[in-house]
Amino acid sequence: MSPADPRGLPAVVLLSGGLDSATALAWAKAQGYVCHALTVDYGQRHRVEIDRARRVADSLGIAAPRVIVVDLRAVGGSALTGAIEVPKDRPIEAMSQGIPATYVPARNTVFLSLALAYAETLGAVDLVAGMNALDYSGYPDCRPEYLRAFENVAALGTRAGAEGAGFRIHAPLMTLDKAGIVRLGLSLGVDYGLTHSCYDPAPDGAACGACDACQLRLKGFREAGLRDPACYRAPVPERG
Amino acid sequence: MSPADPRGLPAVVLLSGGLDSATALAWAKAQGYVCHALTVDYGQRHRVEIDRARRVADSLGIAAPRVIVVDLRAVGGSALTGAIEVPKDRPIEAMSQGIPATYVPARNTVFLSLALAYAETLGAVDLVAGMNALDYSGYPDCRPEYLRAFENVAALGTRAGAEGAGFRIHAPLMTLDKAGIVRLGLSLGVDYGLTHSCYDPAPDGAACGACDACQLRLKGFREAGLRDPACYRAPVPERG
Repeated sequence: MSPADPRGLPAVVLLSGGLDSATALAWAKAQGYVCHALTVDYGQRHRVEIDRARRVADSLGIAAPRVIVVDLRAVGGSALTGAIEVPKDRPIEAMSQGIPATYVPARNTVFLSLALAYAETLGAVDLVAGMNALDYSGYPDCRPEYLRAFENVAALGTRAGAEGAGFRIHAPLMTLDKAGIVRLGLSLGVDYGLTHSCYDPAPDGAACGACDACQLRLKGFREAGLRDPACYRAPVPERG
Repeated sequence: MSPADPRGLPAVVLLSGGLDSATALAWAKAQGYVCHALTVDYGQRHRVEIDRARRVADSLGIAAPRVIVVDLRAVGGSALTGAIEVPKDRPIEAMSQGIPATYVPARNTVFLSLALAYAETLGAVDLVAGMNALDYSGYPDCRPEYLRAFENVAALGTRAGAEGAGFRIHAPLMTLDKAGIVRLGLSLGVDYGLTHSCYDPAPDGAACGACDACQLRLKGFREAGLRDPACYRAPVPERG
């Protein structure tokens, strides 16, 4: 799946400004890719993401992300774009059962298709994203077989693919748990104080500590034996 | 590929306001689908498309299209989003050689992913689009094998797919030439005077008559023995 030597090859990295994508970006940089970060402004409640994506890229010495606006509020159907309430204080074991209200319909397919469009323009065939299968919290579009299917679409549906190029979607966090992701990122110099994971932050960006994303993040730091440097709007809840 | 009886099933129909997608919408309506038209505002030069999509839907008794804004100008790389000049007066035989400047990187993948997101919200598994393989003018993302690959992504990357639903992408024009499309649409009541195909229209919407899309359209009407009712900004050129 990976090229023999990725050094100097262009790669498009989906960067939300969250913990996972920041780690994926640091991984891609460490592999030697010339990273082109892409941030999707999709009308999410947590717009602070877009500012954080810029800061994360800057801290890793990567050019400011290209921002593509796509208003997924027009399709509705998700707590993350405002139609539904963000669930809070769910037990962690409940998160892996079923698909949560925070699922944005076909989000990763939309994001990967935009990354693919940007990659075609750049002449890149490597896409990097922060999906992982363990903490995917019930999202179907975070599974390895889904990524392989998308690679096939990329090969068949692009100019580069028609000319014989194979596209690779790298998901370096796929088999890591949150603690493993945090350890990997710290080893690669990620400043997690800049990252943002909360689905329902305060206007100043402070995390809620109670949504699925906050709980998984806090659990990851706890299991890694570390304190999360991000800003929370209440005392960090004691859970699990 | 088609359900035994599509009557009453919801379908998302990609509608650009062009000749092909108008015909695909009329086909879907005639099949009995409850049609939900989706128009993508992607920063195209020919913004008149969006107004025409509304008028085409209205004339077929379909509710106004849902419009999703995605600014593909941010990825660049296409004559249709302003970065490159629209080619004019190319010989028709040259259009099927190579991929033209009007190719928008990964456009159909972006469009289908948005249609998929909308379908998930509606509970639909049928998507309808106006691609065709004969007149595809060198676009790789208009081939049947590409559509099958996207169906696989849809099955693996959605909530409905995870719950066992199969998605179907219908491309009823796939094997028709432009004359065949015109004949089909007329038999289904399409008012082609409302449709718009030109890649580089005048500010009032009048078509240029010289870009690849205009030439293919004019050739289609000519071969069907009919006069194109659309508005052109110069005397219709005599070609071919």
